[in-house]
Amino acid sequence: MPKIIAGSSCKKIACDLSTTLNIGYMDVVIERFSDQELRVQLPSHLYEEDTIIVQSTCNPANDHLMELLFLIDAAKRAGSRRIISIVPYFGYSRQDRPAYKWGPISARLIAAMLEAAGIDHIVTLDLHSKQAEGFFKMGVQNIDPSVFFSSYLEKSPDLTVVSPDIGGLVRAQKMAEILNAELAIINKTRNGYNSCEMNTIIGEVSDKNCVIIDDIIDTGETICKAAFLLKQHKARSIRVIASHAVLSNHAKQKLTKAPIDLVLTTNSIPQELNQQFFKILNIVPILAETVKMLMRL
Amino acid sequence: MPKIIAGSSCKKIACDLSTTLNIGYMDVVIERFSDQELRVQLPSHLYEEDTIIVQSTCNPANDHLMELLFLIDAAKRAGSRRIISIVPYFGYSRQDRPAYKWGPISARLIAAMLEAAGIDHIVTLDLHSKQAEGFFKMGVQNIDPSVFFSSYLEKSPDLTVVSPDIGGLVRAQKMAEILNAELAIINKTRNGYNSCEMNTIIGEVSDKNCVIIDDIIDTGETICKAAFLLKQHKARSIRVIASHAVLSNHAKQKLTKAPIDLVLTTNSIPQELNQQFFKILNIVPILAETVKMLMRL
Amino acid sequence: MPKIIAGSSCKKIACDLSTTLNIGYMDVVIERFSDQELRVQLPSHLYEEDTIIVQSTCNPANDHLMELLFLIDAAKRAGSRRIISIVPYFGYSRQDRPAYKWGPISARLIAAMLEAAGIDHIVTLDLHSKQAEGFFKMGVQNIDPSVFFSSYLEKSPDLTVVSPDIGGLVRAQKMAEILNAELAIINKTRNGYNSCEMNTIIGEVSDKNCVIIDDIIDTGETICKAAFLLKQHKARSIRVIASHAVLSNHAKQKLTKAPIDLVLTTNSIPQELNQQFFKILNIVPILAETVKMLMRL
Amino acid sequence: MPKIIAGSSCKKIACDLSTTLNIGYMDVVIERFSDQELRVQLPSHLYEEDTIIVQSTCNPANDHLMELLFLIDAAKRAGSRRIISIVPYFGYSRQDRPAYKWGPISARLIAAMLEAAGIDHIVTLDLHSKQAEGFFKMGVQNIDPSVFFSSYLEKSPDLTVVSPDIGGLVRAQKMAEILNAELAIINKTRNGYNSCEMNTIIGEVSDKNCVIIDDIIDTGETICKAAFLLKQHKARSIRVIASHAVLSNHAKQKLTKAPIDLVLTTNSIPQELNQQFFKILNIVPILAETVKMLMRL
Amino acid sequence: MPKIIAGSSCKKIACDLSTTLNIGYMDVVIERFSDQELRVQLPSHLYEEDTIIVQSTCNPANDHLMELLFLIDAAKRAGSRRIISIVPYFGYSRQDRPAYKWGPISARLIAAMLEAAGIDHIVTLDLHSKQAEGFFKMGVQNIDPSVFFSSYLEKSPDLTVVSPDIGGLVRAQKMAEILNAELAIINKTRNGYNSCEMNTIIGEVSDKNCVIIDDIIDTGETICKAAFLLKQHKARSIRVIASHAVLSNHAKQKLTKAPIDLVLTTNSIPQELNQQFFKILNIVPILAETVKMLMRL
Amino acid sequence: MPKIIAGSSCKKIACDLSTTLNIGYMDVVIERFSDQELRVQLPSHLYEEDTIIVQSTCNPANDHLMELLFLIDAAKRAGSRRIISIVPYFGYSRQDRPAYKWGPISARLIAAMLEAAGIDHIVTLDLHSKQAEGFFKMGVQNIDPSVFFSSYLEKSPDLTVVSPDIGGLVRAQKMAEILNAELAIINKTRNGYNSCEMNTIIGEVSDKNCVIIDDIIDTGETICKAAFLLKQHKARSIRVIASHAVLSNHAKQKLTKAPIDLVLTTNSIPQELNQQFFKILNIVPILAETVKMLMRL
Repeated sequence: MPKIIAGSSCKKIACDLSTTLNIGYMDVVIERFSDQELRVQLPSHLYEEDTIIVQSTCNPANDHLMELLFLIDAAKRAGSRRIISIVPYFGYSRQDRPAYKWGPISARLIAAMLEAAGIDHIVTLDLHSKQAEGFFKMGVQNIDPSVFFSSYLEKSPDLTVVSPDIGGLVRAQKMAEILNAELAIINKTRNGYNSCEMNTIIGEVSDKNCVIIDDIIDTGETICKAAFLLKQHKARSIRVIASHAVLSNHAKQKLTKAPIDLVLTTNSIPQELNQQFFKILNIVPILAETVKMLMRL
Repeated sequence: MPKIIAGSSCKKIACDLSTTLNIGYMDVVIERFSDQELRVQLPSHLYEEDTIIVQSTCNPANDHLMELLFLIDAAKRAGSRRIISIVPYFGYSRQDRPAYKWGPISARLIAAMLEAAGIDHIVTLDLHSKQAEGFFKMGVQNIDPSVFFSSYLEKSPDLTVVSPDIGGLVRAQKMAEILNAELAIINKTRNGYNSCEMNTIIGEVSDKNCVIIDDIIDTGETICKAAFLLKQHKARSIRVIASHAVLSNHAKQKLTKAPIDLVLTTNSIPQELNQQFFKILNIVPILAETVKMLMRL
Repeated sequence: MPKIIAGSSCKKIACDLSTTLNIGYMDVVIERFSDQELRVQLPSHLYEEDTIIVQSTCNPANDHLMELLFLIDAAKRAGSRRIISIVPYFGYSRQDRPAYKWGPISARLIAAMLEAAGIDHIVTLDLHSKQAEGFFKMGVQNIDPSVFFSSYLEKSPDLTVVSPDIGGLVRAQKMAEILNAELAIINKTRNGYNSCEMNTIIGEVSDKNCVIIDDIIDTGETICKAAFLLKQHKARSIRVIASHAVLSNHAKQKLTKAPIDLVLTTNSIPQELNQQFFKILNIVPILAETVKMLMRL
Repeated sequence: MPKIIAGSSCKKIACDLSTTLNIGYMDVVIERFSDQELRVQLPSHLYEEDTIIVQSTCNPANDHLMELLFLIDAAKRAGSRRIISIVPYFGYSRQDRPAYKWGPISARLIAAMLEAAGIDHIVTLDLHSKQAEGFFKMGVQNIDPSVFFSSYLEKSPDLTVVSPDIGGLVRAQKMAEILNAELAIINKTRNGYNSCEMNTIIGEVSDKNCVIIDDIIDTGETICKAAFLLKQHKARSIRVIASHAVLSNHAKQKLTKAPIDLVLTTNSIPQELNQQFFKILNIVPILAETVKMLMRL
Repeated sequence: MPKIIAGSSCKKIACDLSTTLNIGYMDVVIERFSDQELRVQLPSHLYEEDTIIVQSTCNPANDHLMELLFLIDAAKRAGSRRIISIVPYFGYSRQDRPAYKWGPISARLIAAMLEAAGIDHIVTLDLHSKQAEGFFKMGVQNIDPSVFFSSYLEKSPDLTVVSPDIGGLVRAQKMAEILNAELAIINKTRNGYNSCEMNTIIGEVSDKNCVIIDDIIDTGETICKAAFLLKQHKARSIRVIASHAVLSNHAKQKLTKAPIDLVLTTNSIPQELNQQFFKILNIVPILAETVKMLMRL
Repeated sequence: MPKIIAGSSCKKIACDLSTTLNIGYMDVVIERFSDQELRVQLPSHLYEEDTIIVQSTCNPANDHLMELLFLIDAAKRAGSRRIISIVPYFGYSRQDRPAYKWGPISARLIAAMLEAAGIDHIVTLDLHSKQAEGFFKMGVQNIDPSVFFSSYLEKSPDLTVVSPDIGGLVRAQKMAEILNAELAIINKTRNGYNSCEMNTIIGEVSDKNCVIIDDIIDTGETICKAAFLLKQHKARSIRVIASHAVLSNHAKQKLTKAPIDLVLTTNSIPQELNQQFFKILNIVPILAETVKMLMRL
């Protein structure tokens, strides 16, 4: 019989998963000593068990990651036969390449650390790039939420999917194909004379129902700028889709003030579920479906 | 004193590197037994030496890769202190993510095999994605040829850099920034009625001097289609830049017949150097520069 | 429930195994892109399955090996619980030691690559040397076909088992013991005066029913020379046993023209089964027996 | 020529080391994105360099540890020949055994992570237990500060070294031997009747000049209780020695109010140097000496 | 169905375990060639089996360790699904830290060798230090015999638990807590004048029923000296508890002659069970209990 | 500056090497505690040094092997830059394949243990099989003593090299080629009627000057039987060559009594040098030559 445990960012999701899958949930101790070092403890051994550990490595990413690593070590030492780690939001996933000179490839390092700690399988949602799956030697169940999201958007001939930057175009094109929509990109350029930065739209957006899509809403700035630019170019409506709602630096206020009609996101990072403008989709059903397939439940 | 050796695809480049860097070139035996198994042999031991092995894993990729792996094992057993592998063209680099369901991530597997065989450092040119650098635990000197290529293109206000597909947009945008040019993308869509495939241009190309950029010209079909589409949309001129000239399936003829003014590429895969329409840039100087930095020569 | 898949050299054997063992056979896609890079794809995931991958790494060895490695990676990423690789003919098995100065030990490197890719168990047939089993950390089920072959040879007091060279004597002696036969060896010597090579027979062969035994018939030259020499020394009859029929460089014609009465071999490398002079023993039953034991079916 | 870089907890120490050793100090970027993820960047490559990375993994331990790991990955990818990590205070060192049931051995996991990230040698100060050196495969230069500390204490016949708990007795005995002093231990017991906890002194302390020694002052509670108990048992004077001044939870105030005459500690965790009651010894000279030996400078 | 096999030091324990657990015991060949090299052989394959290997690495430690390693390799190659190693007495456990300058950490090396050979889980009894559990990446079931031993000692208000040296105090304190007893330590000091060694008692022992506790009785010298010292300080009675009875160098005689009333130890190292003065507790029941939990039997 | 240290079997050889190569010899402590556990200690650290460790793992093989492993760990922890292990006689080298069913491949396991302990290069003499070199990932300098030995044998037309068993024929043939001699093999057969074992000679020996060659003389039985058989078949003279003189079970007496004229062997296992019948060649010069090449001294 498998067991589900959770890091501090995902206790709610883990409980719900446990109920949905009818698998026992085991409450673990995660405390801090007065010097802020973590203290992690399981309530019992796990001999011959498959253990599912659920933890998003969201803000504070370093703390959540260390919690996860200690939970893996504890589960392994407690005798788990196999450890499946569900990381709905994979922190540092944007550092998946040397984005600037002489820096680390942090996402790869974290993958290596998770493997070194002892996981046997990883489940995650909409990684920043599919290439990052290759940072793991093991299979990665990287859930693609495109179809899941698309079911919340009525199809119409006037839809245009907008990538808010160059890097997210593959994701946008995938969604455009599902919705049978047009495609547009926001490109950041530098003016030749004074080298000040400028955003331009490549593609048609005038009188279109625009759907901006990204994997992560962090500060919300890229998306807000995109929304204002689209409005300026006479977009008819603007909706935003993003798998992960990081929402740092007052992102929520900024998004509310931007010409955006709806934000569609998930609780991969804990969110209050019943909101009007921020529609939070619950990922527990798709996680459950994935775990069922994975473990042949 | 370091030594340079080469697999069968890069003997010329390795010799030229040896001359440029004033490092000894060692000719290795690479033969085939009558059952086509490879036989690889070094002329002498390599105790206390740093060994540079040059090999592009171009067509036939499997054979060139196995040559490289056997050379690494031989160099290691012959006592090399350190093995630096220069792979100007990294075969299978396009399989850097699960492109289709339930397939391998071949580029990652090959990275793991090179590490297992015993390399200490890898130098390559314009990998299909920068994320693939993270498949290696070691440092990857992934040479970016953008500036190198751009020096062969006069700057002008009418330049537009065109990405022939969604996946190459990051590369195109980088070049557009260097050239202070506009950006356009060719998007492949499926028609709603009959689901036949259709290419559309996102961005402005009419009366522009277009520069199509990609990492690899393989069959040339994507690029030829792009060129015809650009011409149809009244592009003034069309030039093509691609780091690696795979040129399978009569690509050369197809490109010659397309409305393309110039193809700019390199000898990362062996090419005749003095051609008119296909301008082949010699990568030996930039490889030499990289090796000099790497080894502090 | 385990699943069987196959590389392109062993689809027939894998299907037959599947029928014999009553285990599901899954047809995998193995294609080539126009630049000859491989494209490998499984039809579905393999969560919680034990996967058996059958592939001989026969000519073209490099291609068949890469197919196998990609299949392993795909099976692993598709979630296989355990991967058992059946390699009836293990290419490069003759490069199991530094046969010439400053070369690789290719068989070891390939073993390391298979382990790095992720196999958990390997089954093979009559490896060139038993020492090569030690290149694997895991258990190797290296099937010894001596008894299997001997059942096709009536025992008689006049039998002499002949090793066609020095290296194969252990195999020959094993067979001689099973058949209660005499033993002879062909030795290659160099003449003191003019250093031309000469073959001599050590042991008695005159008026004997000779059985030449080797693991591999490659070009057939060693075996043909042996047969002519035996005939010259008045051998009564000459039969040849070899586990693996590589048959490069017109070996078949050469063997037909040599004074050989029968060649007994297997379909470890795909062969037409119903032949007169070349008697091909079907290895499927002994592979099935081994897998049954291994997996406790 | 080696280079010194530092994480955010040890910039001062690293600069001082650089001056003392006459080795170049390289300032690295350590920033946080608005979602608090770290961004680490080196100013240049490090080809052929030995790189020394200085970082204490003190509070916030998780953040400082992740900084260190990212710096290691960056230094490795930037081409360092060898990476020496100086970790004056090794966070989580107290979790060096399963202190409570079904928990992790966090110190071991961190050692494994540092090794996986790529360090070649580690220097640290007064690890919680010497056994923890065995968590590393590589050599650990675990500096023992006993002699260093003892030089700040005049020897006298009335000295008693006191271990504030059972676990630290080895350290106390070592110091007692150096100082030619008596030894005493504070033991925590539970009363048989009401199981309330009680501290007792084992050994003689009345009219003695007591020196309490521990590796870490964290909340200061253990030490304050020890001091009060010693005073109650008529200790003549009470001084405290501890290598690492964590000082969480208002430890400093508590210590000031306890009957303690002097606290002798180091700047392994950053501290203001010129304090009266808290005498902070500068570890730069002993680190420099160790690095000199290690690198044969 | 799991199988139990044993090295030459634990055949009796393994047989008894097999009976207790109702698991098949498989007798293995352990012989020596005339040059004293070991020859280890299993009677059959172990496909799909969990294999339990029981072996104490007691004197001769090197031989017993090599037996264990060869048994692990044999069990792995014979196809074991999982290998659980029960090492009741873990030789070299006292070399768990650099006890003297520039020596090995032998216990860590042995842990690494056991992991490299292929064990999946280890069960042992009362390791010299709990930190040594961290030398293993895997879970260590390090059985604590305190409660087991305490049940053989009636509780009384006059009990004092004595640690015969500084290093064993943690173990002594644990027992004191269980028995609700006082605590005392024997400390070895060097006289200031002539630096001759001297033992002193820290704590009260006069008219107490003393229980000396240690993990190992090796030469017995430490314990005998402790007993004489306790007697000299008027201890009422003296009993000795130690998990492992190494008993080198005529320890037994020495202990018999010392003022000791009873020695309580186990058969972790083979001992005759029915002795008066040396009471040997049988560890088979607690090993069986642990294996039951571990394998969910 | 490199340093040479030695295990207890090779102190003499190491000292002589040190003198020959003019490299510092460092005397290490190798003692036994009273329970026979080893205690290994270096006299100083080895920072930035290349360390050469000389040890034959001859009888008692397990003890000598553990000494070697502890020396490697100590040298590594003491900071050695690189560790070169010279193992003149490699114990367990005959267990290089599964010689009997369900046994270990001990030589491979030992290779894995040496690599896990941390050696960077290995030098040895005349391994039982060349395939065993492939048990190491690193380069193996496996010195072939054929030419060395042959220089002690005058060439003559009547020479016959005799392999005393099937397994050693490759070695014998190599020597026959060097000496331009004939070749013969002793074959062990079982009689059909009563299955009693019988030795027969394959090849001509009558009136020949026979040279029996083997890698190891262990009990001497195989060689003595061979000598008697050769004499019975009227060999003119009989000399024996063997790299390693294990000489267990009164081998020396047996050899003296057999019809053998001379035994030529080496001090790979410590031997008195000046003997008449047993001519002991000193391997120090060829080891020195190898190390010189290896380290470019």
